[in-house]
Amino acid sequence: MRIPIREVTPQLERATIAGWVHEERDLGGLAFFLIRDRTGIMQVTVPKKKVPEDVLIAIKEVSRESVVRVSGIIKATEKAPGGRELVPESFEILAKAASPLPLDVAEKVPAEIDTRLDARFLDVRRPRIAAIFSIRSRMMEATNSFLFREGFLQITTPKVVAAATEGGTELFPIAYFEKEAFLSQSPQLYKQMMMAAGCEKVFEIGPIFRAEEHNTIRHLNEATSIDVEVSFADHTDVMVLLEKLIHEIYSSVAENCTAELELLGIPDLQVPEKTLPRLPYEEAILIAAKKSEEPIAYGDDLGTASERAIGEEMGTHYFITEWPTSIRPYYAMPSAADPSICNAFDLMHPKMELSSGAQRCHVYDLLVEQIRSKGLSPEGFEFYLKPFQYGMPPHAGWGLGAERLVMTMCNLQNIREAVLFPRDRHRVTP
Amino acid sequence: MRIPIREVTPQLERATIAGWVHEERDLGGLAFFLIRDRTGIMQVTVPKKKVPEDVLIAIKEVSRESVVRVSGIIKATEKAPGGRELVPESFEILAKAASPLPLDVAEKVPAEIDTRLDARFLDVRRPRIAAIFSIRSRMMEATNSFLFREGFLQITTPKVVAAATEGGTELFPIAYFEKEAFLSQSPQLYKQMMMAAGCEKVFEIGPIFRAEEHNTIRHLNEATSIDVEVSFADHTDVMVLLEKLIHEIYSSVAENCTAELELLGIPDLQVPEKTLPRLPYEEAILIAAKKSEEPIAYGDDLGTASERAIGEEMGTHYFITEWPTSIRPYYAMPSAADPSICNAFDLMHPKMELSSGAQRCHVYDLLVEQIRSKGLSPEGFEFYLKPFQYGMPPHAGWGLGAERLVMTMCNLQNIREAVLFPRDRHRVTP
Repeated sequence: MRIPIREVTPQLERATIAGWVHEERDLGGLAFFLIRDRTGIMQVTVPKKKVPEDVLIAIKEVSRESVVRVSGIIKATEKAPGGRELVPESFEILAKAASPLPLDVAEKVPAEIDTRLDARFLDVRRPRIAAIFSIRSRMMEATNSFLFREGFLQITTPKVVAAATEGGTELFPIAYFEKEAFLSQSPQLYKQMMMAAGCEKVFEIGPIFRAEEHNTIRHLNEATSIDVEVSFADHTDVMVLLEKLIHEIYSSVAENCTAELELLGIPDLQVPEKTLPRLPYEEAILIAAKKSEEPIAYGDDLGTASERAIGEEMGTHYFITEWPTSIRPYYAMPSAADPSICNAFDLMHPKMELSSGAQRCHVYDLLVEQIRSKGLSPEGFEFYLKPFQYGMPPHAGWGLGAERLVMTMCNLQNIREAVLFPRDRHRVTP
Repeated sequence: MRIPIREVTPQLERATIAGWVHEERDLGGLAFFLIRDRTGIMQVTVPKKKVPEDVLIAIKEVSRESVVRVSGIIKATEKAPGGRELVPESFEILAKAASPLPLDVAEKVPAEIDTRLDARFLDVRRPRIAAIFSIRSRMMEATNSFLFREGFLQITTPKVVAAATEGGTELFPIAYFEKEAFLSQSPQLYKQMMMAAGCEKVFEIGPIFRAEEHNTIRHLNEATSIDVEVSFADHTDVMVLLEKLIHEIYSSVAENCTAELELLGIPDLQVPEKTLPRLPYEEAILIAAKKSEEPIAYGDDLGTASERAIGEEMGTHYFITEWPTSIRPYYAMPSAADPSICNAFDLMHPKMELSSGAQRCHVYDLLVEQIRSKGLSPEGFEFYLKPFQYGMPPHAGWGLGAERLVMTMCNLQNIREAVLFPRDRHRVTP
């Protein structure tokens, strides 16, 4: 019975809408309400002498951000948004909002991020903020649809695990009955096991948990990872897959989210090329050394300033390839031509890293050697190593951070803007 | 370069395939190998006097379940599966499998579920087991596609939370820096908050965690929940949505997974009707009292025996409706006509419950009263209750257990069969 506001046209004679009271204005004989639902905003005009008594009682009672259902006559008018207004025959308050509101939805009063996150249910009512999550949802739709179309199997791997992926200490411990367990840092080992299981092409979109103590605008302690693993493939194959996916995601958002992009001030979203530049790590270091103020040399990780300097130079999404084996995880495959280099890559947005991937080491003896060379003990990886002894195909894959993808696409200044209920060093509520 | 085995036809002159050595047989002058990849099985025939020396060395060296890449001539033959065989010009061992295998992939030797789960990477190589996860992936594809098509927003809510959904003690505690936190039992409260946030139609597919000590064939401590919430809707609306989804999932599997269903011994998968029977709780109790051996009366929960008795009587998926308010959670909306009954429902497979849902109580004062009446303290729900004071629309939703859906559709005897790496009372590895 209720019509989404976007679908109310001046051609309709009558309509019932439902939504939130975005603004109200009383001019004496005439009152105006802007009613907002997920699809848009429309004006309800109340000529006080011409509407039923019930309506008058309701509009006196109602407050901003209350939920209302309004039925009446649609009239064309140039003065109202969308060229039409609704003159009510009934005006029903479904849920009255208390005053004052903890947050101004109409955004006339600016608010700090912590205030906004504490009242996220009001913050997301702001069309500009809702636009971010509408775009995020569209990105997920495009990702699912692309990967299923490419013949991938969707898998679900456990988030409660007995061991770390990379042997680090950055794990949240769980009291799991009488056992010691942890929250999963990454599905890395599990998706590799699924290669041994013969699944060949798998993906998972799920939460990852990192107990890192940093408190930055680009890290979360709980994030969403888009993970892919492919058998009989090497790093070059999965880089092609990744750049195709990025192109597809941007194209889908550009095509389907024009109103949202407008609200976010990026009406001309730049869709990355289908093929992205490959920048060898060695050249990346040279750019960083020349342009950034961080001292940096071959063999160093890339810090924030370096990433920015290289990103400025590149001016587009790009891959960094040919990384030194010494600074990548044990599961990366060394290059056959030069084992000091490995078949790993990062996908970079000009502002930050989005994805890490590699051809994996599928050779049992080499893998054990690499685990040892990182100062880790192969005994801690028993359940992971076993599959490598019984027919592990060559394989490659990557993990892509969903929040960073949202953040960079929407040009957000803080990664907390890219997730509904962020979890960081200090925040576990709401 | 490599061709999926399913696509190798007798018409091809030559092909390169890659996969696992499913079986090997040596007849002296002639050796046979069955090579298996994700798409099928094909025979490699080695006339020893006619193949290169390299091939002879490799076939002597290779073991069952090793990964190989084989190139050669395709010949039509009625004696081999798929009506064709490959005579190798090259036979390369990509990863040799150690012997003996911890599990017999060809299933000639039966194995206990624990042995199978410990060697899940071998278990899933069995075509019959792989079929389960292929069907599961297809179900997820159908679900995503249906909900996006219906205009739902995909959301991600936190799995690290500060409070319980239902005030229970069935929570896994996490050491979250210096704070107390828990693993989320359900996205219930978060998806309701997204209704207050104006998102109107949301869904989430993600992990839920229950620290229940039971150890049964129908419970997991980590499971996947398909969760939906809809504003300006009541229980009858979301029941229609749910039965449409079930119909869509079954139809999609029946249409796209014929080979997998065949392997599982259910070639004629019964697709449930688009509209399912509604059975009031009161009538369900009468059936259970008459048919089952459990003593049961109005106001009791339905136990396993009752569910089975009612399911046998119904013979199809069905809803149980009109539940007593006293045995449903505080967030269910009491019926306007009779508040001792609430607008809650369960979706039942003849063998077990699949989904629970309800119109939710969106009225702040009533909700607080209901929380108190369940012996809980509203102070523990502060962040959840706040949105109800600032314009919470009427809404309804449900949660659907993905593993139970897989289990019932595939006719599995143990829910552990429906998930790659189950987590139960005793199992946190692999």
